[in-house]
Amino acid sequence: MDVVDLASRLIACPSVTPEDGGALGVLASALESIGFSVERFTSGGPPDGPIENLLAVRGSGAPHFAFAGHSDVVPPGDGWASDPFAPTIHGELLHGRGAVDMKGALAAFVAAAARVPEHQGMLSLVITGDEEGPATHGTVALIERMRARGLVPDLCLVGEPTSEARLGDTIKIGRRGSVNLWIEVPGTQGHVAYPHLADNPATRLVAALAELSAWEIDRGTDWFQPSNLEITDIAIGNPATNIIPGAARARLNIRFNDLQRGADLAAHVEAVVRHHAPRASVRAQVSGEAFLTPPGALSQMVSDAVEAATGSAPKLSTSGGTSDARFLVALCPVVELGLVNATMHKLDEAVALPDLHALVDIYEGVIRRALG
Amino acid sequence: MDVVDLASRLIACPSVTPEDGGALGVLASALESIGFSVERFTSGGPPDGPIENLLAVRGSGAPHFAFAGHSDVVPPGDGWASDPFAPTIHGELLHGRGAVDMKGALAAFVAAAARVPEHQGMLSLVITGDEEGPATHGTVALIERMRARGLVPDLCLVGEPTSEARLGDTIKIGRRGSVNLWIEVPGTQGHVAYPHLADNPATRLVAALAELSAWEIDRGTDWFQPSNLEITDIAIGNPATNIIPGAARARLNIRFNDLQRGADLAAHVEAVVRHHAPRASVRAQVSGEAFLTPPGALSQMVSDAVEAATGSAPKLSTSGGTSDARFLVALCPVVELGLVNATMHKLDEAVALPDLHALVDIYEGVIRRALG
Repeated sequence: MDVVDLASRLIACPSVTPEDGGALGVLASALESIGFSVERFTSGGPPDGPIENLLAVRGSGAPHFAFAGHSDVVPPGDGWASDPFAPTIHGELLHGRGAVDMKGALAAFVAAAARVPEHQGMLSLVITGDEEGPATHGTVALIERMRARGLVPDLCLVGEPTSEARLGDTIKIGRRGSVNLWIEVPGTQGHVAYPHLADNPATRLVAALAELSAWEIDRGTDWFQPSNLEITDIAIGNPATNIIPGAARARLNIRFNDLQRGADLAAHVEAVVRHHAPRASVRAQVSGEAFLTPPGALSQMVSDAVEAATGSAPKLSTSGGTSDARFLVALCPVVELGLVNATMHKLDEAVALPDLHALVDIYEGVIRRALG
Repeated sequence: MDVVDLASRLIACPSVTPEDGGALGVLASALESIGFSVERFTSGGPPDGPIENLLAVRGSGAPHFAFAGHSDVVPPGDGWASDPFAPTIHGELLHGRGAVDMKGALAAFVAAAARVPEHQGMLSLVITGDEEGPATHGTVALIERMRARGLVPDLCLVGEPTSEARLGDTIKIGRRGSVNLWIEVPGTQGHVAYPHLADNPATRLVAALAELSAWEIDRGTDWFQPSNLEITDIAIGNPATNIIPGAARARLNIRFNDLQRGADLAAHVEAVVRHHAPRASVRAQVSGEAFLTPPGALSQMVSDAVEAATGSAPKLSTSGGTSDARFLVALCPVVELGLVNATMHKLDEAVALPDLHALVDIYEGVIRRALG
């Protein structure tokens, strides 16, 4: 199983989320050739679906070790030096959309599994075509399917590109949660010369946002940075210099650690907004709660595999954005380890060929430690 | 000289600012028929011009009493019960755009001047077609022309609709000033999950706006309400929930009394904004400084004329928006008195016919007191 060949064939599939582009077919063939039973199913309907998913299993009984990932990619954008879906090797770099996020890691895990044809228990791959999109019908549907089949893993490794400066320097043992909030403050429109006849919603909104911006949500934990609130948009849309506007809107995002729950944060935001603007409405959407897989057997196993392959142990981190690990923690402890993320979601995304080969070694080490 | 007929003929001219629509021609003919010398001239070029203006003079020597006003109107908008430029009498109401602001007052002053064919000194009318627009080439150009002709009045009455509940209940002896301010705060765009790599301009802008909203500029004077700041717009325009925006903008308006100067207010706003956002820029445009014609001979004369015609003396006010009086005070003391403003700038603008006739009496009283 040639990792560069498999990564290249995956990159050649234009699987811009939510399109599959043939990617899961390439993956299924490779897995079947090394003894996996592959189940593919679509889930959901418009507007967020249908989505193609893949569940592959080899072996049986305990322990059950799962690898999770996705075959979809973000849109390439304009300005690539070469066709983003025509995998191209320049020197030691393999270029193409998804090279590091995360078709390279999918190929590395399959190549690693090919090197460990005999193992105890069960090895599975949990792969969705909807991680970069709304993530409504992807990993969530796979988890339901696994529960229905009685296939609940004991440990899960997510192949997201967690490495920062060099391969294996960082593994993620948790992620912050995320909540978006939409604030709408109604007012009473009027002429600026007669403010007593109007109720300026901008004044109320600004007072609420100033208080929220200054809010120290927490000071972080041993494993998490402090929870943080950002104003991502404010909109009034009043073209007239002499008019007090009739409504004002804002949007916030809070990234929060495991001291917080999304609903509690939303309730606090609503209370602050209502204090300044009793007629305001606040709508909240929790994308995911924070989670932590406390340092222990799983993180140590992954760390040992990295150190054996690269000579250095990784640091344990909880920084950055969300991933599907937020869903998988409902099943079992989860740790994330993958390629260097410097070019993810960027033009000319590329993976270093030595990294791709080294990641096969690392994943092989993890499989042997988990099931060997 | 029939005031209702003249008012109707003026309303029939579609003089939506900056169009003349024939209005100054109607006015010129009426004035020439009662002994005025009429000079018409256009001023300015695109984008704010050209504008048609009219200067009419009768008599010579001192004293010189001037009446100032405008023949342009604001756009009618949709939804009128009758054609806004087809004057229509329903019961005791004359409907049409400009009925109270201020073609009715123009007609009333001409009718009053017709009743006083003999007087001392000089009577003049200073009429522009650009009061409702940018006001760049209207009264300002008329003032230049008057200075060039040596025609500087001793007293000026502006015919804006100052009456509130009933005709003559309010005359204006001053106006607040007005300054618009445009704030632009640059930032550094980034992902909400990595706030340390970004600089959120919304946070800075909100802190500055909260401080400015809470600013007590002054507590007013015997004749003026407190100066007041309003946020009239905030705009970021960021559609992405996971992006810290790269720039944030806001617009303010301050209406201020004669304790303040526009440039000083702008300097304070800039200092507050820069304190929170050192890279921000603030642009200010002073539409007019505050002015006061202290209660005295002119206001008393107008007040006496109102009381003689209506039985009640008016209250002296400085409330409301700006008018061209802000320019005319450069020449001489200015007082404003006109029709009831309840329907100005609204659908189905209308003047009560008894008010129109009573305003002729009031203006006649003012002319006789000024030049009798």
